[in-house]
This record gives sequence, C-alpha cells and structure tokens, in this order.
Amino acid sequence: MTLPVYTAPDFSGEPFASAPDVRTEAAGAGFLPELFYATTIYPEYFKINGVWKLLPQSRMDCAVVIRDGAPEAVEPRRVRAGEQVVVGRTDDGSAGVFVHADGFSAREKKKDSAFAFRTGQSRETSFSRDYDELYEILRHDRAHGSIVWVLGPACVFDSDSRNAMARLIDAGYCHCLFAGNALATHDLEAAVFHTGLGQDIYTKRQAENGHYNHLHTINLVRRAGSVEAFVRERNIRDGVMHALVERGVPFVLAGSIRDDGPLPDVIPNVYDAQNAMREHIRNATAVVCLATQLHTIATGNMTPSFCVRDGIVRPVYLFTVDVSEFAVNKLRDRGSLAVRGFVTNMQDFLVNLERNLLEKE
Amino acid sequence: MTLPVYTAPDFSGEPFASAPDVRTEAAGAGFLPELFYATTIYPEYFKINGVWKLLPQSRMDCAVVIRDGAPEAVEPRRVRAGEQVVVGRTDDGSAGVFVHADGFSAREKKKDSAFAFRTGQSRETSFSRDYDELYEILRHDRAHGSIVWVLGPACVFDSDSRNAMARLIDAGYCHCLFAGNALATHDLEAAVFHTGLGQDIYTKRQAENGHYNHLHTINLVRRAGSVEAFVRERNIRDGVMHALVERGVPFVLAGSIRDDGPLPDVIPNVYDAQNAMREHIRNATAVVCLATQLHTIATGNMTPSFCVRDGIVRPVYLFTVDVSEFAVNKLRDRGSLAVRGFVTNMQDFLVNLERNLLEKE
Amino acid sequence: MTLPVYTAPDFSGEPFASAPDVRTEAAGAGFLPELFYATTIYPEYFKINGVWKLLPQSRMDCAVVIRDGAPEAVEPRRVRAGEQVVVGRTDDGSAGVFVHADGFSAREKKKDSAFAFRTGQSRETSFSRDYDELYEILRHDRAHGSIVWVLGPACVFDSDSRNAMARLIDAGYCHCLFAGNALATHDLEAAVFHTGLGQDIYTKRQAENGHYNHLHTINLVRRAGSVEAFVRERNIRDGVMHALVERGVPFVLAGSIRDDGPLPDVIPNVYDAQNAMREHIRNATAVVCLATQLHTIATGNMTPSFCVRDGIVRPVYLFTVDVSEFAVNKLRDRGSLAVRGFVTNMQDFLVNLERNLLEKE
Amino acid sequence: MTLPVYTAPDFSGEPFASAPDVRTEAAGAGFLPELFYATTIYPEYFKINGVWKLLPQSRMDCAVVIRDGAPEAVEPRRVRAGEQVVVGRTDDGSAGVFVHADGFSAREKKKDSAFAFRTGQSRETSFSRDYDELYEILRHDRAHGSIVWVLGPACVFDSDSRNAMARLIDAGYCHCLFAGNALATHDLEAAVFHTGLGQDIYTKRQAENGHYNHLHTINLVRRAGSVEAFVRERNIRDGVMHALVERGVPFVLAGSIRDDGPLPDVIPNVYDAQNAMREHIRNATAVVCLATQLHTIATGNMTPSFCVRDGIVRPVYLFTVDVSEFAVNKLRDRGSLAVRGFVTNMQDFLVNLERNLLEKE
Repeated sequence: MTLPVYTAPDFSGEPFASAPDVRTEAAGAGFLPELFYATTIYPEYFKINGVWKLLPQSRMDCAVVIRDGAPEAVEPRRVRAGEQVVVGRTDDGSAGVFVHADGFSAREKKKDSAFAFRTGQSRETSFSRDYDELYEILRHDRAHGSIVWVLGPACVFDSDSRNAMARLIDAGYCHCLFAGNALATHDLEAAVFHTGLGQDIYTKRQAENGHYNHLHTINLVRRAGSVEAFVRERNIRDGVMHALVERGVPFVLAGSIRDDGPLPDVIPNVYDAQNAMREHIRNATAVVCLATQLHTIATGNMTPSFCVRDGIVRPVYLFTVDVSEFAVNKLRDRGSLAVRGFVTNMQDFLVNLERNLLEKE
Repeated sequence: MTLPVYTAPDFSGEPFASAPDVRTEAAGAGFLPELFYATTIYPEYFKINGVWKLLPQSRMDCAVVIRDGAPEAVEPRRVRAGEQVVVGRTDDGSAGVFVHADGFSAREKKKDSAFAFRTGQSRETSFSRDYDELYEILRHDRAHGSIVWVLGPACVFDSDSRNAMARLIDAGYCHCLFAGNALATHDLEAAVFHTGLGQDIYTKRQAENGHYNHLHTINLVRRAGSVEAFVRERNIRDGVMHALVERGVPFVLAGSIRDDGPLPDVIPNVYDAQNAMREHIRNATAVVCLATQLHTIATGNMTPSFCVRDGIVRPVYLFTVDVSEFAVNKLRDRGSLAVRGFVTNMQDFLVNLERNLLEKE
Repeated sequence: MTLPVYTAPDFSGEPFASAPDVRTEAAGAGFLPELFYATTIYPEYFKINGVWKLLPQSRMDCAVVIRDGAPEAVEPRRVRAGEQVVVGRTDDGSAGVFVHADGFSAREKKKDSAFAFRTGQSRETSFSRDYDELYEILRHDRAHGSIVWVLGPACVFDSDSRNAMARLIDAGYCHCLFAGNALATHDLEAAVFHTGLGQDIYTKRQAENGHYNHLHTINLVRRAGSVEAFVRERNIRDGVMHALVERGVPFVLAGSIRDDGPLPDVIPNVYDAQNAMREHIRNATAVVCLATQLHTIATGNMTPSFCVRDGIVRPVYLFTVDVSEFAVNKLRDRGSLAVRGFVTNMQDFLVNLERNLLEKE
Repeated sequence: MTLPVYTAPDFSGEPFASAPDVRTEAAGAGFLPELFYATTIYPEYFKINGVWKLLPQSRMDCAVVIRDGAPEAVEPRRVRAGEQVVVGRTDDGSAGVFVHADGFSAREKKKDSAFAFRTGQSRETSFSRDYDELYEILRHDRAHGSIVWVLGPACVFDSDSRNAMARLIDAGYCHCLFAGNALATHDLEAAVFHTGLGQDIYTKRQAENGHYNHLHTINLVRRAGSVEAFVRERNIRDGVMHALVERGVPFVLAGSIRDDGPLPDVIPNVYDAQNAMREHIRNATAVVCLATQLHTIATGNMTPSFCVRDGIVRPVYLFTVDVSEFAVNKLRDRGSLAVRGFVTNMQDFLVNLERNLLEKE
C-alpha cells in the first residue's frame, strides 16, 4: 500500500512571505478571547516569529495556544488563564493562519471529486471498493500505524462477531479500544454466562433468571477491582476484554448516564474520558467506529484528517459502520476526504474483516 | 440436516370423528359467498364426504374451493362463478375445518417458544445461529428442495454482491428468481457498462453521460427482444441474468409503476405476475428475500409454512434480509415459525453466503 | 403568494441563432434509435424548422418525438415504429437542443444555493419554513392550480389522519389522488368496521375475527362493482374514498403484486396505470406524496419541475413525506429546486395541514 | 381525568401471612452480596419484622437496602459497605419479597392485553388515541403531578418546535428538564444568533462564518459563569433555557463525551448526573422523552411504573418520541403498561402539543 503523498505549501511565495505573524490575545479564566480562532480537521500553519509552523496533533474546534513558540491545539476548556490564544478568522494565509485543505496527492483528489456528486452513503451504495481499501489500510497500519477501534455494545451480543473482534485484537489489528461500560459488561457476561443481557449469544435462548446475569457480572468485576483482575481471577479465555488484557492493548471506557454499575475501569467524568481518548487519538492513523453514535461522534470530533508520523504528514483514515444511514452520514458532513461509511450490520462487517484479514493471510 | 418431523392430527378422535362435512356455497361472478373461509399459512384439513383432506399447496388469504372432491386454495379473484367455496369461520375441527398450527416436531416447537419473548429482529439481535441454520437449509435444499430468491435492485449495484449472487446461481443454489424490471436492468447495465445508473459498481466513479446507460441498456434489450436473446447476442459473461440464462433457471420479472422501459420479459399485469410467482412458490421449500419490500411482501403473502414433498409434509423456510427493522419485521408478524429475518446490508449477506456455501465446500 | 417568474432564453443570441435544427431518426418497433435524446425535469427547447420550441408537458427520461412539427415527450415504450425521435446528447443549444435549468427568478435561485451545502433532509432538519411554504402553495393552488396527492396505506390506519385527509379533500385541496389497492381497501374497511386490518383505528383494539374485515371489505366492493357503487350502496359517510366520490375528485388506483383482491377500480397493468397517472400529472402544479415509496417514486419519475399554465411557465412543487430519511431523500437526488422533503410521520403531517389550512381559515 | 385505581395485595392471605422476613446480607466495599435481589419497575413489598412494606421511590435494577427498618431502592454503586442488602431471587411473596405487577384497575389491565398482540410501535401504528391520552395526562399532571421532559438537541434546531417547547414551559407543563450540553447550547445560540450550528433555524440559510456561532456561544456562557447569568446578562427573551430560567424550573444538564465546551451548568461526572436526575424522577408522575436515545434510556432506567403521591399509589406515565422505531421500542421492552411510544418527528409532536394544550384552552 502506498500512502498518498503530502505536499506542504510553498511559504516562499505570496501571500505567505509578506503575511504578518498570527495575532494572539490572552485567555480568561475558563474562557477564550472573543475572536478566538478555531481549528479544522486539515493541516494548518501559523506564522510565529516570521516562521510558518504546522500545527501538530490537531483536531477540530480547538483553540490554538502558543506554547514555547509553537502552536498547539488545545480544547477550549483546557486553555489556562493568561495563555496566548490565536485570534482572527481569516485562514487563507494573509493573516498568519493557513488551512491547507488539499495537500494530499492527485490520486486522492480525483477520488474526492468523484465522490462529490453523491449525497451520502446509503443502503444502496456499493461498498466493495471501500472494503478493499479498508483491508489495505488495516494491513498497512497494523505494523506501520496505530489503529483505534470504537465499539458499540451490539458487537458482543453475537458470538461470531465477538469472536471475530477478539481474533482481530489477537492478530495485532487493534492498538487501542474505545467503548463504554456496556460493551465491556456484555462481553464479560458472555465470558461467564455465554449470554448478553440474559440471552444466549448463539442460540438466543433466554437463560432462567438471566436478567440477573448483567448486574451479577458487574458486581463480580467490582468485587475483583478491575477488568484485568477479573479476567485473571476467573481465568477467562475468550472475548474482547480478554484479548485486550492478554495482549496488553490499552482501552478507554468512558462513562455515560445510561450505565449500570459501572465497572471499576470506567471513567466517570466525561471530560477526563475525552482527555484519555485524545491521548490515543494523537497517534492514531486509522479509526474504525462500529455501531455507536455516542462514541463515534465523540471520537470523530477529536480525529484530524492527518497526522505526522516519522516526520511525514499522512492521512488519518476514519471508518464508520452503522445500520442507520443517519448515523453513518452524521460524521461525513465534516467534509474530510478520509471519512468512509458503511451502512450495514456490524456483525457482518466484523466477520468480513476476520475472513479477509485473518483467514486469507 | 434433519428436517423437523410433521405429525398429522389423529382424525379418529374427537372432535374430528363426529364433525360434519365442511359447508360450501356457490361463488358469485368475481366475488365470494359472504361467509367465505380464508386460509392461513398452516396445514389445514377439510372434511369432505366424511374424509379429512389436507389442503395442498396452500397460501394464506385464499378461498377454499372444492374441485373434484378435493380442497384447493384459490385466490378469491380466480374463483369462478358457481364454484363451491368453503364457508364458516370455525377452524378447530368441530365444523369440518381444522388448522393444524403445531404439527412440527418438538425441537422446532421449543425453539419457537424461546423466540416468543422477543419483539422482533433488530440491529442488536444475534444472527450467528440464524446464519448457520440458513447455510444448513440451503445446502440441504439445493439437492432436495427448491430455493426461490427474491431480489431488490441494490443487489447488483455492488460488484462483490453481484458476483456472489451469480456464483450462487451457478452452483445450483437458486431454482427460481423473482425480481422487478430494475434488478434485471441494473444487472445488464453492469454487464455492458460496468455501471449501475451510470456509476461504476466498483470504483463508484460517475461515467460520462452515464445517466444514459440505464435507458440505453433497456433500449438495447428491447431491440434484442428478450433478456435471453440479449445475453446471447452481446455475449454477456457475468452477472445475475447471465447466470440464470446460462443455467436455465426460471425467473419472474413483475412489473411495477416505478419501471422504466420495461424489459420485454417483464409481466405488465400484476395479477398475471402473481400467478406466475405462485406457480413457483407451490413447490418452494426455501425462500430468500433480499432488500425489496414490494417483492418480499408479495412473495411472503403467497408462501405457506409447509409444503408436501415426496408425500411428506415439511417446513417452507422464509428468510428476509433488509437494513431496516421495519421491513424485516413486516413479514414476521404473520407468526410463522419458519420466518427468519436478518437486519443487515444484503451485500454483506450475499458475500457471507458465497464464502460459507462456496469457498468452504 | 407570488410565483417565481420564469425567463425564457434569448434565442436571438448565440449559440441559438446559428444552431442547426435538431436531428432525428426513425424509431424501431418497440425501441428507439441508438443515440436517442432523453428528457430532463427542466424546461427544454428544440429547434425545429428554424424555430426554438418549448417541450410542453415534459417529464424526465422520455424520448422526444416530433409530431406535427412540435416536440412531444413520449415514454420510450409508447413511441410508435417509424416516428421521428430526437437524437444526440448535446443539450447546450449548439445542436438544436437546450436545457434551461435556471429559468426561474432570482429569489428561487438564491434559496437554491443556500440549500446546496446540505446533504439531504434528516430528522434534525428544521421544517418550520417548509411547512409555511407548503401552506402558501396549497392555498394558492387550490384555486389556481391542480394538486395531486399520492397516499400510502398508513394514512388511513389512524382516525385523526384519515379524517384530516377527508376534510382536505372536502375543502378542495385535492384535485386528484394516486394510491394503491391497500389505501382504498383500508379506508373502506374503516368506513364499514372502524378497523384497519382488523385493528380499531382509534382504540387499537383487535376486533374479534378482525383479520377477516380486510378480505370481507374487498369481497363486498367486488360484489358492488366499484368503489363508487359501494360507497353509495352502503351509504358510507366518512373517509378518503367517500370524500373523493362525493366531490367527484378523480383517483388512480395502481395495481401491485402485493395486492389482495383487488378492488374493481384498480388498474392491473402497471403501464396502463402509468399512463393514467401521467394524464393527471400533465396538469399538476403541486404534488404531495405521503408514506409510500412505490407510488412516490413512480409519481416523481413523471413529474417535471415546471408546467405551462395559462401560457405562463411556473414551477411544479413536489413534496415528499416519510419517516425514513432514505425514502425522503431518494427523490431529492434528481436535483430539482422544487423538491421538498419532510422526515416525519404522515399522521402528524396531515393533522398539521388540517389545522393550518382549515381551522385557521 | 380519572387515574386508574391501585389495589394493594391482601397480606392477610397466603403465601404472605406465613412468609418469613426477607433475608439480608451485608454489602462489601463497592459491591453487593452475591445473591442480591434486584428491583423491577413494579410495586414491590418486603416483609420486615413481620410487616409487609412497600418499597417507595423505586426504580429497576437497584439493590434493596434496609435503612431504619424500611426498604430503600439504592443503586448498587451507592450502597455503603456493611449495609444490609436484601438477598434471594424469589419474588412471589413466599420468601418475603413480592412483586405486584398488576395492581392497577381493570380498565388499564384490559387495555394492556389489547396491546399484547402488537409487536411494537411503528410508522404504521395509529397514534390518535395515544395523543388524546397524553393530552389528558399532561393537563391533569400540570396541577396534580410532576412532569419531567427529556430533550434531544434537535428540538431547538427548528423555530416552531423551539417556540412550542418554550410556551409549554411558560404554561406550567414542565416541572423539570433533562438534557445535555448540546440542547442548551443550541438553544442559546438560537437566542443570540437565530442559528443552530450556524444555520438559520427558520430559513435554513447558512450564516457567514456561522460554524463559529456554536463555539462562540459556549465561550460567552462560560464567561458569564452560568446559563442563568448569561440569560440575564444578554437579556435573552426567547427559547427553552430562557423559559426555564424565567419560571425557575430546575434542569439537569448531564455531560457526555460528545460535548464541546461544556457550559458551566453541565455535570461532568455521569454518576453525579444520574443522582441529580433521580432526585427529580423520585417525584415524577409523567416523563416525556424526545429525540434522544442517550438521555431517554438513562431516564427510562430510573423511572418506575408507579409513584406514591399524597399517600396514593398511581402510575408514572412514560412517553418516548423518536423518528426511529428502534429508538422508540428500545424502552418498550421493559414491559411496563405505562410506556407509550410515538414514531414521529418531535417537531410535529411539540407543535401538536402546543396546539392542543395551549391554543384549545
């Protein structure tokens, strides 16, 4: 797989050469200067002390704070009082700010325009090529990137897809997992009782008093003290959480008001959870989001269209999978070339990946 | 695979033994007697001249006409004036009519009750077992049954799923296909131009003046005189219609008011189309409906829960696949034990079948 | 309400003045010349004998036949062997064909571009203004236009919406109705039994043996000979079909393969049904499509963006209402300025109309 | 409106009279005894010191802690180490625990069984009666109950529905509001800029640089210190948040990982947010949930089927409104007689309520 080549702007030309430095103003306590500049998903450059500097580890809707002479993308709530924040809303280079929306190579651009006439992914979109590109990217980034998975709970309600996801983790296709309390709980319930919310994940038979299985699992993990302790203590041998623990893959479980329990590993403060997620997204090269609007949008919000890896600017690929067109297209509207959506059941999606990435090796 | 065993009622017991013969009245010209009896999807018996007779080749919502001393399920519009039609709405055997809703063996019954608490298929239903049962049934019925496919047009908008369907036909998994003008037209457009409605079915690139491809294809087939003539004349080598023609698999293309064209093979009168479809459904043992509400409901309406094959009563299995819960559950409400729904994109569904039925052979 | 003003092209300028006449070729028996020109939804002009002539009563995907020196939009299947059909696919005026895609006044154009960035209607779209425009158009076109309604069966499953629709017909807001066998049957079942498919349309209670109500109603109408005869014979006083019959509003019931019955008024041949529908659409100024994909797409296919009324070119407004974004956006992709979609339950939609058009009068 | 009458069990009869007291065990630090009993949504009685006591202010999936000799429903995470927790999973009265699932009067029970055959709400369900019951309940509970609203952000993307909701609050139909950061932010953006995410909430025109309006609004509220301070400081005169502040109606804004900002009033820790929500739900008599899966499920989880008001046990009515059947039916599966779903756009729903509750007064 050849990644598309990135071409930086030629800052020796105009309007760059004669542009002034960016303007900044000091932040207040908990709020920004009125005319704060907000970041996009694209590569952006800021002229500081006469030099154009790329904003690394960006994400959209951040303030740009100058720290040690370099621009940094900081969530507004994390800007400290008195810090210098870029202001002004001109981003064509003439005022010291430049958004470089089409730095990637021709091949990508042509594809982009081919997409333009379409109004979104639907159940009638052809997905064969998107699958092929996805396989290619995941194979490449397994060794040369960092793949973050974002999973909704339905993934582990079905035995085939639960096994597929576990095998993908085992095989090194997952460098980090984002989910909520439900995914982890359902997965561990499946490990202990072979049920999800009391229903057998293969036969669909309702277990007797099975509605207790969910709460009971949570109670056991709380007693064990952590997911990892529980996996080891119960000698669990299958499922997603087991695979993560076994391989030492980090995971972020973000709390939500829907949660029972929660499991001890869940982060109760959602902004702490955002911080934890962003730490992993800073290095992500591909993000695969399955069947969760909440976590997908949260992750999409913080995922830029590019990252810098070994000094090279490369795309970050973002995939969303949902059975609802509304959910799939929700992220697409941000206009990134790198968002691809699949309108399908994520069970089939995971089984497709398992077959193509693992069985065909 | 072992088919569930059917146990007929014991007609030597009561209320059967002392029940009277069914009552009948003569039909009018184009209408039934006021108290006409309407069939269900289950095995039904009618007492005629003192003998209980199974209604063969049934379907729901039919009149029961006595022809040559035997009961026959006839669509009300096809009952001829003066024919003797069963009347009365008591179906517990006491009045000469008996609906035998649970004649199949225990294994099936238990499964049925396990299903009872569930309120329908959803994106969060576990489908692993349903897939396994589907594979088993299709493998069995390839040689020992008759498999009818009902396809919506989206099937051929994607190159992988179009190839998968063609390969399933090639391999003998399809004994008859129901579709509309659009499926056949899109498939033939793909064969000629590699597009569907002008868009490449793999790359999704819009062909120049590609919106003509659709109308152009129809025009060419109309000139050729039939789908088969066109396939031969253009030496077409791929796709669904080619596979059908090549293997001599019959197909019914039913007209609809959405149609362009139509292709010469399309049946313009919808009740003639129903008749043609029912001829094939009479012998069907499994029906797989993909991504078309119109044709799925039409087919579901005429598909009974059982058929008689080599003198043995066996289930007819009905599968519906759609990305919309509403569509999947629409048929399920008829309450048959043999309806199974999959909430997913039919592209993935077909690729799953291809892999499991063909690659694993 | 002021309709947007249409400005015809200035044919004294170039490329019009020096353009040649359109080229034509003779049609075959049931097929067109290979390079046939296909119509759009926009006003189109054809140069014939040196004069540019507007194609009246157009619709998309038709052949253009020259009859008596004037261009006529004819469905390909209805072109007679030997007729002269316009060929060539250049539509910028230079070859005798001109598509005038932006003839309507500035106000409309601006609105159009404001819409451009949006990727379709969704559950999160603001519909307040769309409602206000709809009310304005319906009020205007009640007296000065022709409003065609296209109704799915769900409309009459609910007593409030059924009453609302009937009242709108009574008040003159409906000049023609398109539907299928189901809408008419459910409406008449409601009139006779106060149920829809056996379920009370207000309390939702299942009537005893209520599943017979549907088939029974059909049987009674078939015996009566027509919907009108049935309405009069049973002295029916409420519902949609009664309102149509009472006011003499024409309706087209198109057959489909899903139909039970059918009612005697249903047109069994779908291309005959298309013909009947197009006769009404030729004069339509507004079309409102509710909760039926089949009939909505069929109608949308034959509805142009403009019509000529009293010698003036004016827009034809097309509204689609469905609870599914997929269905609503399906038509929107044709790119007409005059398509407006509402993602909502049509029950609420009809009740809104009743209130705003009738109660506020 | 007459509330259904509740009949308590006759505890002088068997198995109640000779049943033993409930068994309890001490909780651990952060976890429950292994055999903990979990609550339902129904009235439940516990025998303590020989007396059967109703569990007040219940909710499902809680532990039952004996505090001061009385049973209390406590979320497992809030049970303190050493507290006595009810254990055992027999709930028929024979072991000191009794779930009284059908205590409400006959009228309700009959309705319930009428509902039983239906498999969920769909776009084709008749909602006329549900609306009428809703109007009746809201009119009653405005003065004699406590109505909690749960709002998704789409509510304020449309000017009519935003106004409708504000008017309902003004008129006393809302005793508490649950929402997230987005609802409040979009509403305040509308108050300041007349846009939602930069798009005019009536004309849908995109404001220039409008994508800043969202972040800018958050920044201004953060500077002001609270929603209330912002409403007063900017002299805001319209919208949902203004109406709440003006009337002193409490609101709970629960944080989520999707949030920008957040606004100062948002509760960052989701379990603190649950606690705040439950304080209000303890007294709720009706709950109306619009277009938010996250907050609807969170609220549904903590809403019992009954409450005790002025010493009388009465139903708590729960309504869910969403354009997606999946979302609407998600809660319904809990089996409460008091859950009613509407499959529609909440814009229309709110406008319906405005008309029926306010204009018809």
